[in-house]
Amino acid sequence: MRAISEYQDIIVAHFKTLTLEKEPNNLYEPIRYILSLGGKRLRPILTLMAAEVFDTDCQKAIQAATAVEVFHNFSLIHDDIMDDAPLRRGNETVHEKWNLNTGILSGDAMLILAYQFFETYEPNVFRELAKLFSKTALEVCEGQQYDVDFETRDDVTIPEYLKMIEYKTAVLVGAAMKMGAIVAETSTENTNAIYDFGLNLGIAFQLQDDYLDAFGNPETFGKQVGGDIIENKKTYLYLKALEYSKPEEKEQLLHLFSIQPSDNTDKINSVKQIFNQTGASDATQSAIQDYTLKAFETLDKMNISEDKKTVLRAFGDKLMSRNV
Amino acid sequence: MRAISEYQDIIVAHFKTLTLEKEPNNLYEPIRYILSLGGKRLRPILTLMAAEVFDTDCQKAIQAATAVEVFHNFSLIHDDIMDDAPLRRGNETVHEKWNLNTGILSGDAMLILAYQFFETYEPNVFRELAKLFSKTALEVCEGQQYDVDFETRDDVTIPEYLKMIEYKTAVLVGAAMKMGAIVAETSTENTNAIYDFGLNLGIAFQLQDDYLDAFGNPETFGKQVGGDIIENKKTYLYLKALEYSKPEEKEQLLHLFSIQPSDNTDKINSVKQIFNQTGASDATQSAIQDYTLKAFETLDKMNISEDKKTVLRAFGDKLMSRNV
Repeated sequence: MRAISEYQDIIVAHFKTLTLEKEPNNLYEPIRYILSLGGKRLRPILTLMAAEVFDTDCQKAIQAATAVEVFHNFSLIHDDIMDDAPLRRGNETVHEKWNLNTGILSGDAMLILAYQFFETYEPNVFRELAKLFSKTALEVCEGQQYDVDFETRDDVTIPEYLKMIEYKTAVLVGAAMKMGAIVAETSTENTNAIYDFGLNLGIAFQLQDDYLDAFGNPETFGKQVGGDIIENKKTYLYLKALEYSKPEEKEQLLHLFSIQPSDNTDKINSVKQIFNQTGASDATQSAIQDYTLKAFETLDKMNISEDKKTVLRAFGDKLMSRNV
Repeated sequence: MRAISEYQDIIVAHFKTLTLEKEPNNLYEPIRYILSLGGKRLRPILTLMAAEVFDTDCQKAIQAATAVEVFHNFSLIHDDIMDDAPLRRGNETVHEKWNLNTGILSGDAMLILAYQFFETYEPNVFRELAKLFSKTALEVCEGQQYDVDFETRDDVTIPEYLKMIEYKTAVLVGAAMKMGAIVAETSTENTNAIYDFGLNLGIAFQLQDDYLDAFGNPETFGKQVGGDIIENKKTYLYLKALEYSKPEEKEQLLHLFSIQPSDNTDKINSVKQIFNQTGASDATQSAIQDYTLKAFETLDKMNISEDKKTVLRAFGDKLMSRNV
């Protein structure tokens, strides 16, 4: 197996070959633009890695990996419209740089393009990939809808929140890895186990995102620390704090999440203090740990060499020790 | 073979069985809503009909027919957002009844759902259907983009306009019929010929839409007669009138297409007079005829009984003699 950075190089090099120089230009230029903004390319890397975990040259998985990344970028374009986000990866979002209609239509085209990347595979593999992809893509839409619904609800439960991040984020991580396994045509047990590995790691990853958004190091965390608090987002930290808080803490937290001051410094500090003193911070750290361990436990169900398991475990550890 | 109305009954009955009672409700309710608004169900009827043309029970094609209709309704939701349309089939559009985000996300989910209906077919048929579907869906997006582009261009040519309506409307008609042929597993010649039949009929159908929008009988034409003229739409009639007009007629037409009077009666009458006196009306009628004949010529390439050809020809004649 290769080092993570090698898989990343392969993906980056492959995306450079995707010229997408098609007409009408107004449809394809925004697609080239969003794909050129880069990002970690985490999901396609996982597809390549999974193929090699199951003893198949990762080049065989490159089209499936491309589909996953193109789908992910489709969802970014449409989510950015829904969130009215001005920036994506430090650059203008598609609907800002062009307009709403371009954002909708270019996104639609990317969702269809994603399916087309599977067409290089023979019928049985194609069908398996496309089925998994449709199921996953629909779940991502459902997750996004739950996220939208939660904005106007004040009775969101922890299980509901976990289901939302599972659908919105984690299923695509699981599916990315499962696609590597499908291309490798490994056993059903292996295929399902790597999906669960990715799924649980994906949940841990998203919970860590919540944690770092509040407690990340401002010097290394790419986004504004405290962004979720400013936006009154009901994250795991927040929901746990509500659950664990004494009446006066709860009242204070609900108040803080009802205001939008021009200077957020005090609000952020007060909320973080509540997150800490209620035990919500510890609970989040512990949930991250639990889901990571759950991911690692699925390794026992895989019929692969110890070396390969070590690689997957190291990848999980690396992802979870990140501070960006 | 059955009568058209029988295929329609089968489709209507089948859509009633699609309960789509899934969570989150805010994602699936708009999908149930748009599908409940009905419409002519022309495209899925064509899929069923094509299967029987090639001697296969139309029930075998029902899932493919469903995919085509669900896709068509996806495109209506997103197009209505782009056109800022308040009404669809006499009812509120999805983004009006709910909001923009719901329109985007429910549309996305329908595009994915459409692919899932193919999953009942075995791998080879599934792959063929999904490939054709992706190609067609992408062309529909391209056609929609051309249509958007044309709004702000004043140098649209007739070939460009024909390409736009081919992509935006006709390819889906061709694909709907080809899917019936794929499910029937008929010969490649038959499969391609029925696509061309649908494609050419689809172009004729759209040109007739342009014609009826101006010259339809207000008492039987469902929409407001003159709607395209009010909106200064560059239809085939308009482009042909520009091509055929004398300098003073051209100047008058360009002027009429630059104004938006509160009472459109005079504008509509003047434009229709120009359409008539320049020969644009006759040219449009003749183009409708040409594309219909081109569709009928593809029947010669099909290895099917004369009876079947008669049914297809009768269907084309019926479609072209419509006044709604």
